[in-house]
Amino acid sequence: MSAEAKIAALGLALPTAGAALANYVPAVRAGGLLIVSGQLPLVGGQLDDSCKGKVGHDLFNEAGQAAARLAALNVLAQARAALGSLDRIKRVVRLGGFINAAPGFHALPAVMNGASDLMVEVFGEKGRHARTTVGVSELPLDAAVEIEAMFEVE
Amino acid sequence: MSAEAKIAALGLALPTAGAALANYVPAVRAGGLLIVSGQLPLVGGQLDDSCKGKVGHDLFNEAGQAAARLAALNVLAQARAALGSLDRIKRVVRLGGFINAAPGFHALPAVMNGASDLMVEVFGEKGRHARTTVGVSELPLDAAVEIEAMFEVE
Amino acid sequence: MSAEAKIAALGLALPTAGAALANYVPAVRAGGLLIVSGQLPLVGGQLDDSCKGKVGHDLFNEAGQAAARLAALNVLAQARAALGSLDRIKRVVRLGGFINAAPGFHALPAVMNGASDLMVEVFGEKGRHARTTVGVSELPLDAAVEIEAMFEVE
Repeated sequence: MSAEAKIAALGLALPTAGAALANYVPAVRAGGLLIVSGQLPLVGGQLDDSCKGKVGHDLFNEAGQAAARLAALNVLAQARAALGSLDRIKRVVRLGGFINAAPGFHALPAVMNGASDLMVEVFGEKGRHARTTVGVSELPLDAAVEIEAMFEVE
Repeated sequence: MSAEAKIAALGLALPTAGAALANYVPAVRAGGLLIVSGQLPLVGGQLDDSCKGKVGHDLFNEAGQAAARLAALNVLAQARAALGSLDRIKRVVRLGGFINAAPGFHALPAVMNGASDLMVEVFGEKGRHARTTVGVSELPLDAAVEIEAMFEVE
Repeated sequence: MSAEAKIAALGLALPTAGAALANYVPAVRAGGLLIVSGQLPLVGGQLDDSCKGKVGHDLFNEAGQAAARLAALNVLAQARAALGSLDRIKRVVRLGGFINAAPGFHALPAVMNGASDLMVEVFGEKGRHARTTVGVSELPLDAAVEIEAMFEVE
Protein backbone atom coordinates (compact mmCIF):
# COMPACT_ATOMS: atom_id res chain seq x y z
CA MET A 1 0.00 0.00 0.00
CA SER A 2 1.38 3.41 -0.89
CA ALA A 3 2.14 5.96 1.81
CA GLU A 4 -0.75 8.19 0.74
CA ALA A 5 -3.12 5.21 0.70
CA LYS A 6 -1.86 4.24 4.15
CA ILE A 7 -2.48 7.77 5.46
CA ALA A 8 -6.05 7.49 4.19
CA ALA A 9 -6.52 3.94 5.52
CA LEU A 10 -5.28 4.97 8.96
CA GLY A 11 -7.60 7.97 8.91
CA LEU A 12 -4.64 10.25 9.67
CA ALA A 13 -5.27 13.93 9.18
CA LEU A 14 -2.04 15.72 8.32
CA PRO A 15 -1.85 19.22 9.78
CA THR A 16 -1.80 22.15 7.38
CA ALA A 17 1.81 22.67 6.35
CA GLY A 18 2.86 25.84 8.15
CA ALA A 19 4.24 28.71 6.13
CA ALA A 20 7.79 29.92 6.53
CA LEU A 21 7.99 32.31 9.48
CA ALA A 22 11.22 33.98 8.46
CA ASN A 23 14.03 33.70 5.92
CA TYR A 24 13.95 29.95 5.99
CA VAL A 25 11.69 27.39 4.40
CA PRO A 26 10.04 24.23 5.69
CA ALA A 27 11.92 21.87 3.36
CA VAL A 28 14.72 21.89 0.81
CA ARG A 29 15.57 19.30 -1.80
CA ALA A 30 19.21 18.65 -2.65
CA GLY A 31 20.03 15.87 -5.07
CA GLY A 32 18.12 12.82 -3.93
CA LEU A 33 17.53 14.16 -0.42
CA LEU A 34 14.73 16.19 1.11
CA ILE A 35 15.68 18.02 4.30
CA VAL A 36 12.75 19.06 6.49
CA SER A 37 13.17 21.86 9.04
CA GLY A 38 12.62 21.13 12.72
CA GLN A 39 8.89 20.83 13.31
CA LEU A 40 6.93 21.49 16.49
CA PRO A 41 3.74 19.66 17.56
CA LEU A 42 1.47 22.32 16.08
CA VAL A 43 -2.23 21.96 15.26
CA GLY A 44 -3.64 24.63 12.99
CA GLY A 45 -0.42 26.59 13.49
CA GLN A 46 -0.98 26.68 17.25
CA LEU A 47 0.86 24.94 20.06
CA ASP A 48 -1.64 23.42 22.48
CA ASP A 49 -0.80 23.55 26.18
CA SER A 50 -0.75 19.75 26.20
CA CYS A 51 2.38 19.88 24.00
CA LYS A 52 4.19 22.57 25.98
CA GLY A 53 6.79 22.44 28.70
CA LYS A 54 9.27 19.92 29.99
CA VAL A 55 8.75 16.21 29.54
CA GLY A 56 9.16 14.64 32.95
CA HIS A 57 7.72 17.67 34.71
CA ASP A 58 4.90 19.38 32.80
CA LEU A 59 3.91 16.34 30.77
CA PHE A 60 4.84 12.69 30.99
CA ASN A 61 5.63 9.69 28.86
CA GLU A 62 2.40 9.15 26.94
CA ALA A 63 1.74 12.84 26.44
CA GLY A 64 5.36 13.24 25.34
CA GLN A 65 4.91 10.44 22.81
CA ALA A 66 1.74 12.09 21.54
CA ALA A 67 3.62 15.36 21.10
CA ALA A 68 6.38 13.56 19.19
CA ARG A 69 3.80 11.92 16.94
CA LEU A 70 2.19 15.28 16.29
CA ALA A 71 5.53 16.90 15.42
CA ALA A 72 6.17 13.97 13.06
CA LEU A 73 2.78 14.54 11.42
CA ASN A 74 3.93 18.09 10.76
CA VAL A 75 7.12 16.67 9.22
CA LEU A 76 4.96 14.59 6.87
CA ALA A 77 2.76 17.58 6.07
CA GLN A 78 5.85 19.56 5.07
CA ALA A 79 7.22 16.69 3.02
CA ARG A 80 3.92 16.32 1.17
CA ALA A 81 3.77 20.07 0.53
CA ALA A 82 7.31 20.02 -0.86
CA LEU A 83 6.95 16.88 -2.98
CA GLY A 84 3.29 16.92 -3.97
CA SER A 85 2.83 13.40 -2.59
CA LEU A 86 4.36 11.25 0.13
CA ASP A 87 4.54 8.49 -2.47
CA ARG A 88 7.66 10.15 -3.86
CA ILE A 89 9.51 9.23 -0.65
CA LYS A 90 11.80 6.25 -1.20
CA ARG A 91 13.07 6.02 2.35
CA VAL A 92 12.91 7.80 5.67
CA VAL A 93 16.65 8.24 6.18
CA ARG A 94 16.96 10.04 9.51
CA LEU A 95 14.93 11.69 12.25
CA GLY A 96 16.50 14.08 14.72
CA GLY A 97 14.55 14.36 17.96
CA PHE A 98 15.06 17.16 20.45
CA ILE A 99 13.17 16.62 23.70
CA ASN A 100 12.56 19.52 26.11
CA ALA A 101 13.59 17.35 29.04
CA ALA A 102 13.11 18.03 32.74
CA PRO A 103 16.27 17.63 34.82
CA GLY A 104 16.84 13.93 35.46
CA PHE A 105 14.42 12.74 32.76
CA HIS A 106 16.23 10.08 30.71
CA ALA A 107 13.40 8.16 29.03
CA LEU A 108 13.96 10.14 25.86
CA PRO A 109 13.87 7.18 23.43
CA ALA A 110 10.37 6.19 24.60
CA VAL A 111 9.15 9.72 23.87
CA MET A 112 10.79 9.70 20.44
CA ASN A 113 9.09 6.40 19.60
CA GLY A 114 5.93 8.43 19.05
CA ALA A 115 7.60 9.84 15.93
CA SER A 116 9.36 6.66 14.83
CA ASP A 117 6.24 4.52 15.12
CA LEU A 118 4.33 6.92 12.87
CA MET A 119 6.94 6.60 10.14
CA VAL A 120 6.68 2.82 10.14
CA GLU A 121 2.86 2.92 10.23
CA VAL A 122 2.87 5.10 7.12
CA PHE A 123 5.86 3.79 5.15
CA GLY A 124 6.32 0.21 6.39
CA GLU A 125 9.88 -1.12 6.13
CA LYS A 126 11.08 1.93 4.22
CA GLY A 127 9.92 4.00 7.18
CA ARG A 128 12.63 2.52 9.40
CA HIS A 129 15.19 5.26 9.86
CA ALA A 130 18.37 6.25 11.60
CA ARG A 131 17.71 8.59 14.47
CA THR A 132 19.36 10.74 17.10
CA THR A 133 17.49 11.65 20.27
CA VAL A 134 18.77 14.18 22.81
CA GLY A 135 17.35 16.21 25.65
CA VAL A 136 17.66 19.97 25.27
CA SER A 137 17.17 22.79 27.71
CA GLU A 138 14.78 25.00 25.70
CA LEU A 139 12.75 24.81 22.50
CA PRO A 140 10.93 27.44 20.43
CA LEU A 141 7.56 28.42 21.97
CA ASP A 142 8.41 26.16 24.92
CA ALA A 143 7.37 23.16 22.82
CA ALA A 144 7.86 19.73 24.39
CA VAL A 145 9.55 18.28 21.30
CA GLU A 146 11.04 19.30 17.97
CA ILE A 147 11.67 16.84 15.14
CA GLU A 148 13.66 17.25 11.94
CA ALA A 149 13.98 14.78 9.08
CA MET A 150 15.99 13.65 6.07
CA PHE A 151 14.22 11.67 3.34
CA GLU A 152 15.49 9.96 0.23
CA VAL A 153 13.18 10.98 -2.59
CA GLU A 154 12.48 10.19 -6.25
CA MET B 1 24.36 39.33 -8.62
CA SER B 2 26.70 36.52 -7.60
CA ALA B 3 27.21 35.72 -3.93
CA GLU B 4 30.79 37.05 -4.01
CA ALA B 5 29.63 40.25 -5.69
CA LYS B 6 26.90 40.58 -3.10
CA ILE B 7 29.40 40.15 -0.26
CA ALA B 8 31.41 42.99 -1.79
CA ALA B 9 28.33 45.15 -2.43
CA LEU B 10 27.16 44.72 1.15
CA GLY B 11 30.64 45.56 2.41
CA LEU B 12 30.67 42.37 4.44
CA ALA B 13 34.03 41.33 5.80
CA LEU B 14 34.23 37.58 6.20
CA PRO B 15 36.27 36.52 9.22
CA THR B 16 39.48 34.62 8.61
CA ALA B 17 38.57 30.97 8.27
CA GLY B 18 39.80 29.39 11.49
CA ALA B 19 42.22 26.48 11.28
CA ALA B 20 41.27 23.03 12.51
CA LEU B 21 41.83 22.85 16.25
CA ALA B 22 42.00 19.07 16.44
CA ASN B 23 41.46 15.96 14.34
CA TYR B 24 38.54 17.47 12.55
CA VAL B 25 38.28 19.95 9.70
CA PRO B 26 36.09 22.98 9.11
CA ALA B 27 34.28 21.54 6.09
CA VAL B 28 33.99 18.32 4.12
CA ARG B 29 32.61 17.79 0.65
CA ALA B 30 30.70 14.60 -0.12
CA GLY B 31 29.15 14.24 -3.53
CA GLY B 32 27.21 17.41 -4.20
CA LEU B 33 27.11 18.47 -0.56
CA LEU B 34 29.42 20.60 1.56
CA ILE B 35 29.10 20.02 5.29
CA VAL B 36 30.44 22.84 7.47
CA SER B 37 31.40 22.17 11.09
CA GLY B 38 29.62 24.02 13.87
CA GLN B 39 30.93 27.60 13.93
CA LEU B 40 31.11 30.02 16.86
CA PRO B 41 30.79 33.83 16.60
CA LEU B 42 34.55 34.34 16.47
CA VAL B 43 36.37 37.45 15.28
CA GLY B 44 40.05 36.95 14.53
CA GLY B 45 39.82 33.57 16.20
CA GLN B 46 38.66 35.15 19.44
CA LEU B 47 35.28 35.07 21.14
CA ASP B 48 34.33 38.54 22.28
CA ASP B 49 32.54 38.90 25.62
CA SER B 50 29.55 40.32 23.75
CA CYS B 51 29.03 36.88 22.16
CA LYS B 52 29.44 34.87 25.35
CA GLY B 53 26.99 33.45 27.83
CA LYS B 54 23.32 32.66 27.93
CA VAL B 55 20.87 34.40 25.64
CA GLY B 56 18.07 35.67 27.84
CA HIS B 57 20.40 36.30 30.75
CA ASP B 58 23.87 37.54 29.71
CA LEU B 59 22.79 38.94 26.37
CA PHE B 60 19.42 39.61 24.84
CA ASN B 61 17.54 39.41 21.57
CA GLU B 62 19.47 41.86 19.38
CA ALA B 63 22.86 40.86 20.74
CA GLY B 64 21.88 37.22 20.26
CA GLN B 65 20.93 37.93 16.66
CA ALA B 66 24.25 39.68 16.13
CA ALA B 67 26.07 36.65 17.52
CA ALA B 68 24.11 34.35 15.21
CA ARG B 69 24.99 36.55 12.23
CA LEU B 70 28.64 36.47 13.22
CA ALA B 71 28.63 32.67 13.53
CA ALA B 72 27.00 32.52 10.09
CA LEU B 73 29.74 34.78 8.68
CA ASN B 74 32.21 32.20 9.98
CA VAL B 75 30.19 29.49 8.19
CA LEU B 76 30.57 31.47 4.95
CA ALA B 77 34.27 31.99 5.57
CA GLN B 78 34.73 28.24 5.93
CA ALA B 79 32.65 27.53 2.83
CA ARG B 80 34.70 30.00 0.81
CA ALA B 81 37.95 28.50 2.10
CA ALA B 82 36.76 25.01 1.16
CA LEU B 83 35.35 25.90 -2.27
CA GLY B 84 37.53 28.78 -3.39
CA SER B 85 34.46 30.94 -3.98
CA LEU B 86 30.96 31.25 -2.58
CA ASP B 87 29.78 31.35 -6.19
CA ARG B 88 30.13 27.57 -6.29
CA ILE B 89 27.23 27.28 -3.84
CA LYS B 90 24.02 26.27 -5.61
CA ARG B 91 21.81 26.31 -2.56
CA VAL B 92 21.94 26.79 1.19
CA VAL B 93 20.26 23.51 2.15
CA ARG B 94 20.17 23.55 5.93
CA LEU B 95 21.34 25.51 8.96
CA GLY B 96 21.45 23.96 12.41
CA GLY B 97 21.29 26.55 15.19
CA PHE B 98 22.23 25.79 18.77
CA ILE B 99 21.43 28.62 21.16
CA ASN B 100 23.00 28.78 24.63
CA ALA B 101 19.63 29.59 26.18
CA ALA B 102 18.89 30.87 29.65
CA PRO B 103 16.22 28.89 31.50
CA GLY B 104 12.81 29.99 30.28
CA PHE B 105 14.13 31.76 27.16
CA HIS B 106 12.03 30.56 24.23
CA ALA B 107 12.56 33.26 21.59
CA LEU B 108 15.13 31.06 19.88
CA PRO B 109 13.84 31.54 16.31
CA ALA B 110 14.28 35.32 16.54
CA VAL B 111 17.90 34.82 17.55
CA MET B 112 18.48 32.37 14.72
CA ASN B 113 17.06 34.85 12.22
CA GLY B 114 20.39 36.66 12.50
CA ALA B 115 21.93 33.73 10.63
CA SER B 116 19.06 33.08 8.24
CA ASP B 117 18.78 36.70 7.18
CA LEU B 118 22.47 36.79 6.27
CA MET B 119 22.06 33.80 3.95
CA VAL B 120 19.24 35.48 2.07
CA GLU B 121 21.14 38.80 1.90
CA VAL B 122 24.06 37.02 0.28
CA PHE B 123 22.40 34.33 -1.83
CA GLY B 124 18.91 35.66 -2.48
CA GLU B 125 16.25 32.99 -3.09
CA LYS B 126 18.81 30.19 -3.13
CA GLY B 127 19.80 31.30 0.36
CA ARG B 128 16.44 30.17 1.75
CA HIS B 129 17.16 27.03 3.72
CA ALA B 130 15.70 24.39 5.98
CA ARG B 131 16.68 24.93 9.58
CA THR B 132 16.51 23.47 13.05
CA THR B 133 16.85 25.71 16.10
CA VAL B 134 17.17 24.38 19.63
CA GLY B 135 18.29 25.70 23.00
CA VAL B 136 21.23 23.90 24.53
CA SER B 137 22.69 23.98 28.01
CA GLU B 138 26.35 24.60 27.17
CA LEU B 139 28.48 25.48 24.15
CA PRO B 140 32.23 25.44 23.52
CA LEU B 141 34.00 28.47 25.06
CA ASP B 142 30.62 29.49 26.56
CA ALA B 143 29.64 30.91 23.17
CA ALA B 144 26.11 32.26 22.87
CA VAL B 145 25.40 30.41 19.63
CA GLU B 146 26.83 27.72 17.36
CA ILE B 147 25.76 27.26 13.75
CA GLU B 148 26.41 24.38 11.34
CA ALA B 149 25.48 24.19 7.67
CA MET B 150 24.84 21.97 4.68
CA PHE B 151 25.24 23.45 1.21
CA GLU B 152 24.55 22.06 -2.24
CA VAL B 153 27.62 22.85 -4.36
CA GLU B 154 28.79 22.65 -7.95
CA MET C 1 46.73 0.38 5.40
CA SER C 2 43.01 -0.30 5.10
CA ALA C 3 40.64 0.67 7.90
CA GLU C 4 39.99 -2.97 8.79
CA ALA C 5 43.73 -3.70 8.81
CA LYS C 6 44.25 -0.65 11.00
CA ILE C 7 41.57 -1.81 13.45
CA ALA C 8 43.44 -5.11 13.70
CA ALA C 9 46.87 -3.47 13.95
CA LEU C 10 45.66 -1.21 16.74
CA GLY C 11 44.13 -4.18 18.54
CA LEU C 12 40.81 -2.36 18.70
CA ALA C 13 37.83 -4.50 19.62
CA LEU C 14 34.66 -3.09 18.14
CA PRO C 15 31.64 -3.56 20.39
CA THR C 16 28.86 -5.83 19.18
CA ALA C 17 26.59 -3.72 17.00
CA GLY C 18 23.46 -3.24 19.10
CA ALA C 19 20.13 -4.28 17.66
CA ALA C 20 17.40 -1.75 16.94
CA LEU C 21 15.48 -1.05 20.15
CA ALA C 22 12.38 0.32 18.45
CA ASN C 23 11.06 1.35 15.04
CA TYR C 24 14.36 2.77 14.00
CA VAL C 25 17.56 1.20 12.76
CA PRO C 26 21.22 1.76 13.57
CA ALA C 27 22.18 2.97 10.10
CA VAL C 28 20.61 3.87 6.78
CA ARG C 29 22.26 4.23 3.39
CA ALA C 30 21.00 6.89 1.00
CA GLY C 31 22.84 7.39 -2.26
CA GLY C 32 26.52 7.64 -1.44
CA LEU C 33 25.93 8.41 2.24
CA LEU C 34 25.62 6.21 5.31
CA ILE C 35 23.82 7.84 8.22
CA VAL C 36 24.49 6.24 11.63
CA SER C 37 22.05 6.76 14.50
CA GLY C 38 23.23 8.44 17.68
CA GLN C 39 25.36 5.95 19.61
CA LEU C 40 25.99 5.75 23.34
CA PRO C 41 29.21 4.49 25.00
CA LEU C 42 27.85 0.96 25.43
CA VAL C 43 29.88 -2.17 26.10
CA GLY C 44 28.03 -5.42 25.51
CA GLY C 45 24.84 -3.41 25.24
CA GLN C 46 25.30 -2.02 28.73
CA LEU C 47 26.19 1.47 29.89
CA ASP C 48 28.90 1.31 32.53
CA ASP C 49 28.68 3.74 35.45
CA SER C 50 31.98 5.25 34.28
CA CYS C 51 30.18 6.55 31.17
CA LYS C 52 27.13 7.92 32.96
CA GLY C 53 26.20 11.34 34.22
CA LYS C 54 27.32 14.87 33.60
CA VAL C 55 30.77 15.67 32.28
CA GLY C 56 32.22 18.30 34.59
CA HIS C 57 30.41 16.88 37.62
CA ASP C 58 30.13 13.07 37.61
CA LEU C 59 33.08 12.47 35.34
CA PHE C 60 35.85 14.70 34.07
CA ASN C 61 37.93 15.40 31.00
CA GLU C 62 39.78 12.13 30.47
CA ALA C 63 36.82 9.96 31.42
CA GLY C 64 34.66 12.07 29.12
CA GLN C 65 37.11 11.54 26.27
CA ALA C 66 37.10 7.81 26.95
CA ALA C 67 33.30 7.80 26.81
CA ALA C 68 33.38 9.70 23.50
CA ARG C 69 35.88 7.20 22.10
CA LEU C 70 33.65 4.33 23.20
CA ALA C 71 30.57 5.89 21.59
CA ALA C 72 32.62 6.34 18.42
CA LEU C 73 33.63 2.66 18.53
CA ASN C 74 29.91 1.87 18.56
CA VAL C 75 29.50 4.14 15.52
CA LEU C 76 32.16 2.08 13.72
CA ALA C 77 30.54 -1.18 14.82
CA GLN C 78 27.24 -0.03 13.31
CA ALA C 79 28.94 1.12 10.12
CA ARG C 80 30.69 -2.22 9.74
CA ALA C 81 27.44 -4.10 10.39
CA ALA C 82 25.68 -2.01 7.75
CA LEU C 83 28.42 -2.15 5.12
CA GLY C 84 30.07 -5.50 5.74
CA SER C 85 33.46 -3.83 6.05
CA LEU C 86 34.83 -0.48 7.14
CA ASP C 87 36.94 -0.57 3.98
CA ARG C 88 33.88 0.55 2.03
CA ILE C 89 34.05 3.93 3.78
CA LYS C 90 35.53 6.58 1.48
CA ARG C 91 35.38 9.42 3.97
CA VAL C 92 34.18 10.27 7.45
CA VAL C 93 32.04 13.28 6.53
CA ARG C 94 30.60 14.47 9.82
CA LEU C 95 30.34 13.63 13.49
CA GLY C 96 27.69 15.15 15.72
CA GLY C 97 28.66 15.14 19.39
CA PHE C 98 26.18 15.71 22.18
CA ILE C 99 27.81 16.05 25.59
CA ASN C 100 25.79 15.66 28.79
CA ALA C 101 27.42 18.76 30.27
CA ALA C 102 27.35 19.96 33.84
CA PRO C 103 26.35 23.61 34.25
CA GLY C 104 29.34 25.79 33.47
CA PHE C 105 31.33 23.02 31.74
CA HIS C 106 32.61 24.43 28.44
CA ALA C 107 35.51 22.13 27.55
CA LEU C 108 33.26 20.23 25.19
CA PRO C 109 35.69 20.09 22.24
CA ALA C 110 38.33 18.31 24.33
CA VAL C 111 35.80 15.65 25.27
CA MET C 112 34.74 15.23 21.64
CA ASN C 113 38.36 14.76 20.60
CA GLY C 114 38.07 11.24 22.01
CA ALA C 115 35.77 10.45 19.06
CA SER C 116 37.61 12.49 16.45
CA ASP C 117 41.00 11.02 17.30
CA LEU C 118 39.65 7.50 16.86
CA MET C 119 38.46 8.30 13.34
CA VAL C 120 41.90 9.55 12.31
CA GLU C 121 43.63 6.57 13.96
CA VAL C 122 41.49 4.20 11.93
CA PHE C 123 41.05 6.05 8.62
CA GLY C 124 44.04 8.40 8.43
CA GLU C 125 43.47 11.54 6.37
CA LYS C 126 40.07 10.38 5.16
CA GLY C 127 39.05 10.14 8.80
CA ARG C 128 39.24 13.92 9.19
CA HIS C 129 35.64 15.10 9.39
CA ALA C 130 33.39 18.07 9.92
CA ARG C 131 31.88 18.08 13.37
CA THR C 132 29.43 19.85 15.63
CA THR C 133 29.79 19.62 19.40
CA VAL C 134 27.17 20.92 21.82
CA GLY C 135 26.32 20.45 25.47
CA VAL C 136 22.87 19.04 26.14
CA SER C 137 20.82 18.80 29.31
CA GLU C 138 19.89 15.09 29.18
CA LEU C 139 20.78 12.00 27.18
CA PRO C 140 19.19 8.54 26.93
CA LEU C 141 20.07 6.30 29.91
CA ASP C 142 21.88 9.30 31.44
CA ALA C 143 24.83 8.60 29.13
CA ALA C 144 27.71 11.07 29.27
CA VAL C 145 27.91 11.41 25.47
CA GLU C 146 26.04 10.52 22.31
CA ILE C 147 27.66 10.54 18.86
CA GLU C 148 26.07 10.33 15.40
CA ALA C 149 27.84 10.12 12.06
CA MET C 150 27.63 10.62 8.33
CA PHE C 151 29.99 8.65 6.08
CA GLU C 152 30.61 8.75 2.35
CA VAL C 153 30.61 5.15 1.16
CA GLU C 154 31.34 3.11 -1.96
